[in-house]
This record gives sequence, C-alpha cells and structure tokens, in this order.
Amino acid sequence: MSSVLVTGANRGIGLGLTRHLLFNPSVATVIATARDVDSAKELKALSCPKLHIIQLEVVNEDSIANAVKKVSEIVGENGLDFLINNAGIGDAMTPLNGELSKAKIASVYEVNAIAPLLISNKFYPLLKKAAAKKGSAQIAMISSGLGSLETSKNIPKEMHFTPYGMVQSAVNMLTRRIAVEWKEDNIRATTFCPGWVKTDMGTDKAQYTVDESTIPLTKLILSLTEEHNGKYYRYNGETIPW
Amino acid sequence: MSSVLVTGANRGIGLGLTRHLLFNPSVATVIATARDVDSAKELKALSCPKLHIIQLEVVNEDSIANAVKKVSEIVGENGLDFLINNAGIGDAMTPLNGELSKAKIASVYEVNAIAPLLISNKFYPLLKKAAAKKGSAQIAMISSGLGSLETSKNIPKEMHFTPYGMVQSAVNMLTRRIAVEWKEDNIRATTFCPGWVKTDMGTDKAQYTVDESTIPLTKLILSLTEEHNGKYYRYNGETIPW
Repeated sequence: MSSVLVTGANRGIGLGLTRHLLFNPSVATVIATARDVDSAKELKALSCPKLHIIQLEVVNEDSIANAVKKVSEIVGENGLDFLINNAGIGDAMTPLNGELSKAKIASVYEVNAIAPLLISNKFYPLLKKAAAKKGSAQIAMISSGLGSLETSKNIPKEMHFTPYGMVQSAVNMLTRRIAVEWKEDNIRATTFCPGWVKTDMGTDKAQYTVDESTIPLTKLILSLTEEHNGKYYRYNGETIPW
Repeated sequence: MSSVLVTGANRGIGLGLTRHLLFNPSVATVIATARDVDSAKELKALSCPKLHIIQLEVVNEDSIANAVKKVSEIVGENGLDFLINNAGIGDAMTPLNGELSKAKIASVYEVNAIAPLLISNKFYPLLKKAAAKKGSAQIAMISSGLGSLETSKNIPKEMHFTPYGMVQSAVNMLTRRIAVEWKEDNIRATTFCPGWVKTDMGTDKAQYTVDESTIPLTKLILSLTEEHNGKYYRYNGETIPW
C-alpha cells in the first residue's frame, strides 16, 4: 500500500491524478496540495478517507517546510512512496521577437522548475525513508513534450513556446540528475507529458479529456520501475526523445 | 567584413573571444560589453581601433535597451552580424539533498538563460538588418556541455551541477527555437561548450587555457553556416547530443 503526494491538485491534471489515485486499490494515502485550500471546491468534494488535503504554495520555502512537517505526521515511519510534482503554469507563449517580460519568464521558471527542485530536495528524507522500507520511492514530474529539444525543431514557429519550453527542458535535467544523484538511495525520477488536455491551461480546444490523460498516467506512475529511472514518457508510456 | 558583439567580455572566455576576434581579418568591428566598464582593465588594455567597449548589465532591461541604441549607432545600416551571448555565472553547484537557495538558483537562470533570451530579442532588429544585407546573421550561446541531457547520466553524482545544468538545457531550447522562429529572417543560433577552461569560473584546475578554447571557438563561430543552425558543439567543432 502506497502513499502519494500530488502538488497543484485543485484542478486540471492534478485533480484528475488525485481522483484516479483514490480509486486505485494499491494506494492507501493521497496527499493533495493546493495553494488555496479554501477555494479548492472540487478537490474537497472528493471527500474520501484516503485523502488528505494540505496547503502548499510551491514557490514558498516556508510553505514547503510546513508541508513536509504535515506529510511527515501523515505518513509516519513509512515515509512517502510517490511525489508527483504537478503544479505548474503555462502562460509564457510569446513570439521571440515580441514583448517578452523578464518577470513573467522568471515566474514560469520559479513555479515549473525551481519549485520541483526545492520540493524534491525537502521531501528527500521522507522519500528516502520509504525507499529504505520498500526498496524504492518515485518522483514524477508532470511536465510537457514541449521540453523535448529533439522534437522542438518540428514544431511550427507560430507555437511561440520558447520561454515555456526552456523551463520544461530544465525540468528534464532535474529528472536526469535525481536519477544519478539519488540512485543509491533508490529514489527514482521520471518526467511525463500528460498530452494536450482540456484544462484551464490546455483550453477547450485540447485533444484529450482529463480522464483520457490521467487514467493511463496514474497507472503508469504507479507501475514505474528502475528501467524508467531518469527517462521521459508520454501519458500513454511512449518514450519522448530528449 | 563583420561586426560582432560579445557580452561579458571583461574576463575569461569573453575576453579571450574578444582578443581573437580583434586579430581576425574578417572582423571589422568588435563590440565588447561589461557590467562594470571602469574595472574592465584587461579589456581596455586591448586598445584597438576595431574595439568598442560598452556598458551592459545583461539582466537589466533598461541597460539592454541602452546597449541596443549604442550598438545601432556603431553598426549603422549594416546591422549586427554576430551576437555572442557569453556572459554567465556558474555558482550553483549544490548537492540535490543539500542546502539549495531559491534566490541563487533563480539568479543563475536570470543571468545564463533569461538574459540571452532578452538580449537576442532586443538585438533582433539589428541582426535582421545584417541578415537582409549579407544573407545571414548569427547568434552564438556560450553555454556548457553540462546542459546535455543525453550525456548527463554519465557524469558522477559528486559533480552536483543540477541547478546549473538545468539552466544550460534551457539555453539549448532557446537556441533550438531561434533556429525555427527566425529561420525565414536568416538569423541562426548555435550553442557552444567552450570546454573546461582556466578562468575564474573554471578555476586553475581546468583542462584548457583560455587560448586553447577561444582560438578554435572564435574560428568556429565566424565560419558557421545554415548546417550549424540550431545545433550544439564543443569549442573544437565536435557535436554534442541533446
């Protein structure tokens, strides 16, 4: 029986993952985080005894420290089996020769790349504890296929995703290096592209419903092995090149 | 005859590139930038009629705008042929389970990734002008082999370069997307690893002298063609995988 923490669980992909984790019989505890718990109505409506909702502002170091304390109380000596770094923002779609705001570019990096780095760092002791008990613990980065350097050359210039794509490439390096630095601790990391999903970020025009992405993605995350350590996959298990 | 701008030209690789650009007969104008021109003694000592030294704080949007104005006056209707985004900092070598400072991680991203993005963006009109006259203009990112996702798995965990490596992967995405977004303008971009060089950043233990890196690197940058657009090379022309 596993414990899983999902950041940014109040909407979109994070809410979908939380729902399907709760449905999964191998999962005993789901810790869902939201920046603003009060307004996380859909998340609170899930009201399942497995579910713990905690406040976490992913870019705030004090908030991360508080969350670690609370999670530690919930999981106790078993540690945390899965950390899903899902919280993210996507609003950095600007032409390279357009009006690029330094503050906006910096904030996408802060939320999408620095936060997963700091959160993984602060949850390291709890992940290590779980890995020592059960043989492994797993970090999953919910990122984007737009972080693939290899395939980026085939995406039309009109997509204008440079500031966003840069950040997702950085997340891939984070995944790669956790796979090396924490290998002996049996803590693994894997990056995922959830696909283009109908969420606030993906808009209504997107290709998939939240369930079409998060049902297979939940299953995939829960079945990861050493073979997947430091790699990059679509929600359906297809490999993405760097 | 070409015009070249080098950022962070007051020391290390930037100073070496500036020196060898001045020696090169195909280069008519070298614009060398430094955050603090007054203290850039070695740069000022080069005193060559081809050399223009201008103040540029790469993370300051007003400073970038001022630099564009000054460069525009220097290069006039010919535009700018080469933009070398060299300025960078390297002090983010921290174990993933160590004391990671959010402010430090953010500042490495700001200097090494956001600055080249903003500078390329603001110099776009001058690069476009040169490309329209001569057929092409070139952006060179002086980055690092530590941005390679592919090879990162072979680097021992003791290197602890994650926050730095993440940023350099992001710079690679910037290069890739300039190659797509500005292709029709004939503005190209290429990323380079200068090797491990004896500079303030590389320390005395490094493998190469500044000349051993910057003599071939200068030659390589000045000889780039469409074939090199959106790619990643060592200072000696060897390809680096993403």
